[in-house]
Amino acid sequence: MSASVTIALDAMGGDRAPAMVLRGADLALERYPDARFLLFGNEAQIAPILAKLPRLKQAAVLHHTDEVVLDDAKPSQALRTARRSSMRLAIEAVSSGAADGVVSAGNTGALMAMSKIVLKTLPGIDRPAIATLFPTRRGESVMLDLGANVECDADNLVQFALMGNVFARTVLGLAQPTVGLLNVGSEDLKGNDEVRAASARLRDGTIPLRFHGFIEGDDIAAGTVDVIVTDGFTGNVTLKAIEGIAKLFSEALRASFQHSMMARVGYVFARVALKKFAMRLDPRRHNGAMFLGLAGIAVKSHGSTDALGFANAIGVAIDLKINGFLQKISDELARLRQPETAMAGVEPQPSAAL
Amino acid sequence: MSASVTIALDAMGGDRAPAMVLRGADLALERYPDARFLLFGNEAQIAPILAKLPRLKQAAVLHHTDEVVLDDAKPSQALRTARRSSMRLAIEAVSSGAADGVVSAGNTGALMAMSKIVLKTLPGIDRPAIATLFPTRRGESVMLDLGANVECDADNLVQFALMGNVFARTVLGLAQPTVGLLNVGSEDLKGNDEVRAASARLRDGTIPLRFHGFIEGDDIAAGTVDVIVTDGFTGNVTLKAIEGIAKLFSEALRASFQHSMMARVGYVFARVALKKFAMRLDPRRHNGAMFLGLAGIAVKSHGSTDALGFANAIGVAIDLKINGFLQKISDELARLRQPETAMAGVEPQPSAAL
Repeated sequence: MSASVTIALDAMGGDRAPAMVLRGADLALERYPDARFLLFGNEAQIAPILAKLPRLKQAAVLHHTDEVVLDDAKPSQALRTARRSSMRLAIEAVSSGAADGVVSAGNTGALMAMSKIVLKTLPGIDRPAIATLFPTRRGESVMLDLGANVECDADNLVQFALMGNVFARTVLGLAQPTVGLLNVGSEDLKGNDEVRAASARLRDGTIPLRFHGFIEGDDIAAGTVDVIVTDGFTGNVTLKAIEGIAKLFSEALRASFQHSMMARVGYVFARVALKKFAMRLDPRRHNGAMFLGLAGIAVKSHGSTDALGFANAIGVAIDLKINGFLQKISDELARLRQPETAMAGVEPQPSAAL
Repeated sequence: MSASVTIALDAMGGDRAPAMVLRGADLALERYPDARFLLFGNEAQIAPILAKLPRLKQAAVLHHTDEVVLDDAKPSQALRTARRSSMRLAIEAVSSGAADGVVSAGNTGALMAMSKIVLKTLPGIDRPAIATLFPTRRGESVMLDLGANVECDADNLVQFALMGNVFARTVLGLAQPTVGLLNVGSEDLKGNDEVRAASARLRDGTIPLRFHGFIEGDDIAAGTVDVIVTDGFTGNVTLKAIEGIAKLFSEALRASFQHSMMARVGYVFARVALKKFAMRLDPRRHNGAMFLGLAGIAVKSHGSTDALGFANAIGVAIDLKINGFLQKISDELARLRQPETAMAGVEPQPSAAL
């Protein structure tokens, strides 16, 4: 853990940037005291905040730029025009080798488009995917794609399974993670052509991973599998739907405690337990969507997050670097291109459907 | 409310059938004392339970059959072989006019396939959809399709919008319900070809409804629109994901209250508020998925529900009948086939995107 990791930060991305980004980086130094940061953004706005954060100032180098990618910019437009933007320069710091990874809370589509162009996709991967960690009954699962690809064919889904599997092994430290494909039912005949074809490919044993089979929506929270694979349309809608219901749940709970004098007394006694509960489901603890399949580490933070959430997104990027994710996924992909040695890895376990 | 409604019940469908079905019907009589039931199922199993439910016995006629549709039967197989099944006979009671609607907690695919064959789809509807009510921050919204059609084109989505709109007007009693199309973002260019084409059709003013535009996953719980339209794949996964997270949330909350002596004391004081909270989000209160687009009323109950949940599903069928849903949707569809009068209905309101 003592090796120094350098992260490039888009200091201008996010609803409360740049203050939120800088405070987040400062907070990340508590967990990763050896981390270093390259900050890209408007010096006039950043310098006064940095002056009040001496620990971060010591660990960071500021690169001024006037340009920013607007939240409503189209990816194609950002690609053409925002060549000197804080986002683009931060990504280029990774491709040049100056930084080990990039974190931005800015425009997701622009960040993905620029990352694809600047960092390139890994050999063997057609399209990168957005992945995130989810709290489940059993612990944490990784889910992908969350919106990078609204239409996916079977090949894309198989590649997502492969990337998620390597991620779960390296970052979550699981020896043989289980992988499930999201569908409307667990039987072989369920679903559309894409998921059925992907399932057949994942079952045939050529890809060394433990394929659980199809899973359904309620298996996400149940933690039935370690890796949840789906297309970007379903993944995006599902993730946001879950966030929405979690928010409604928290609000309804709070309202129910304000409901009567007795309930308010109860709240005083139950406060510690409720805080523990809220912490476990705090979305800030799970902030930081990873762009997997790129030849570089890129992490997207929620635009509306605060410093604590942004610090967690930085932690995700640092963990990917420390755990050697890029090297391991490259090795795995190279092994798959040489079929004779593909079976030397994890024993494939053709498990029964749910 | 005094008009007598007759509901055909598949007494053998559901995990705890027939007892759960019969107790559910008995419970439904509290809210709908004039309701009548046709029970289809195994007399040897049903009669002893019915003997203990004198109120239901008075209101019900039992039709014996030995056959049942198994939970794992394929729809095509059930169609061919289960011609004397409790499910099929209950559906046929609707097509013959003996009953006003059918409720089953059995195999969803078989129920949909048999309902399509026996009841037929309404003129102007290519494919029926499964719809349900959702608790939201604002109250309740209706969402469809929840799994009848894993692949949907723009025409299907437009028809779902139309059916959901009539449902919200007649059953929810909303004068001008808002309709939203689930997507990965709110901008016009987001999403796949199907949702973009459906959105263009819903905006062009030929269909008299208030189209809000695209909505995202978190708009479901927020109650941004009254009618949420999506394809059956996304709808099914999203609905089950929400159910899964709600269950996890309840469990985590319970665990946090068992966490310490103080928390347990707090629970005693907060009990009423927490019960109120749990009741608001109780899935049994929202049990009963409606098959919309058929020339008859068919409602699917969760297979794992209890008597209270089943009573609510019966209530959904009765409400559809009482509110004249079938007549109103038929009128609306007939009006659309005569374009010159289509605009005479609700004023279309081309609202801005989110």
